[in-house]
Amino acid sequence: MFDVIAFDADDTLWHNEPLYRGAQRQVLDILAQYHGRDWIERRMNETEIRNLEHYGYGIKGFTLSMIETAIELTEGRISGAEIGRIIELTREMFKAPVELLAGVEETITTLSASHDLMLITKGDLFEQEAKIARSGLAGHFSKVEIVPVKIRETYRSIAAKHKIDPQRFLMIGNSIRSDILPVLEMGGSAVHIPYETTWEHEVVPDEELAGREFIRLAHIRELPDLIDELKNADQYRER
Amino acid sequence: MFDVIAFDADDTLWHNEPLYRGAQRQVLDILAQYHGRDWIERRMNETEIRNLEHYGYGIKGFTLSMIETAIELTEGRISGAEIGRIIELTREMFKAPVELLAGVEETITTLSASHDLMLITKGDLFEQEAKIARSGLAGHFSKVEIVPVKIRETYRSIAAKHKIDPQRFLMIGNSIRSDILPVLEMGGSAVHIPYETTWEHEVVPDEELAGREFIRLAHIRELPDLIDELKNADQYRER
Repeated sequence: MFDVIAFDADDTLWHNEPLYRGAQRQVLDILAQYHGRDWIERRMNETEIRNLEHYGYGIKGFTLSMIETAIELTEGRISGAEIGRIIELTREMFKAPVELLAGVEETITTLSASHDLMLITKGDLFEQEAKIARSGLAGHFSKVEIVPVKIRETYRSIAAKHKIDPQRFLMIGNSIRSDILPVLEMGGSAVHIPYETTWEHEVVPDEELAGREFIRLAHIRELPDLIDELKNADQYRER
Repeated sequence: MFDVIAFDADDTLWHNEPLYRGAQRQVLDILAQYHGRDWIERRMNETEIRNLEHYGYGIKGFTLSMIETAIELTEGRISGAEIGRIIELTREMFKAPVELLAGVEETITTLSASHDLMLITKGDLFEQEAKIARSGLAGHFSKVEIVPVKIRETYRSIAAKHKIDPQRFLMIGNSIRSDILPVLEMGGSAVHIPYETTWEHEVVPDEELAGREFIRLAHIRELPDLIDELKNADQYRER
């Protein structure tokens, strides 16, 4: 039924968002002497999202946005040494081990025996390549695409490049905005597996979901059974 | 004779290094009150090159490295406001227009009529995609590869992916380290077109060039004639 099953990476295959929020919490500790935490956090998130158009996704842009906010909110009173501490904190993020989500290794191993698997992740080329290498999963994917954004055109051009019929393309991911909606718009299928937290930028208002058809699973472990069921239903329909 | 002619982008098709050095000069102006310019510049370049393994190439890593050096060299005395100015300066780099080198537009247009052209550039995915889009040249290239580093394995995997025989692959670029040597090592051909300045990190000591065969041109405008000559020489050899 599906020629290609594609997976998102961050917060679908491995933990990512907690790394960012953990670093942000530590930066908030540094800045707490200047302002209230909630206010700083809100401003930081706003700056981060506003700067995406310049910086794209990834640790470096995140760091620069936090520094920018820290300077703004302290009206330049933050010291060089404190900013140095922010840089150190975020540099530790580059060295963080890649922690697979529970069930990922077994599920990917099982599915790769019977299906052509692909990895489609947005973000910083350098950072994503390093994470893919350290994940130990690279060998299971026949194709890896690292893209700057995930919109309908991104999926269309990936499908065209690899000569994949969108109707036989299934995408799995934790972000409705990036992994589900644009794939449905292209005519593909998508399975949503929510992660424990959703980055503000990826939240989609309920009204945008009206009339969209996709399946939601609680856990990646349920995926092989779902794919079997879809296949059987499809065979049934064909008879 | 060549199935694919591939081009580097930064400082081969469009000006890039002067943008970085211009921003660095302005940051040196800010720091000149703390230390001698030459010493700061040397330390800045060292930090930038050392941080490549964490940050990869691109404006964001460059900015973070300059901030890091500024904090280190002033022992944290640099003010938040001064660091804010560094971020502003480098943010202007994102908006800088893409200025093609003289002769590029005509040469690429000419060659694309008779050859399959490819773009292979290393750097930040987000930044490189934006520059390619703004260059107005994208339509001339059948394939675009943005890679984190350019080593022999990079070229090998590009050749394998697109089923290109390395012996029928020609690379054009300004960096001996990134565009020439790894292509020769893979068994391909390469043409070196030096840019007006070479980033320290890309400089190759003369002894590494012993026995390497590649052609050097002063100007990209000479390229179509060279390719014709190589083709004629090849036909002559075949007779």
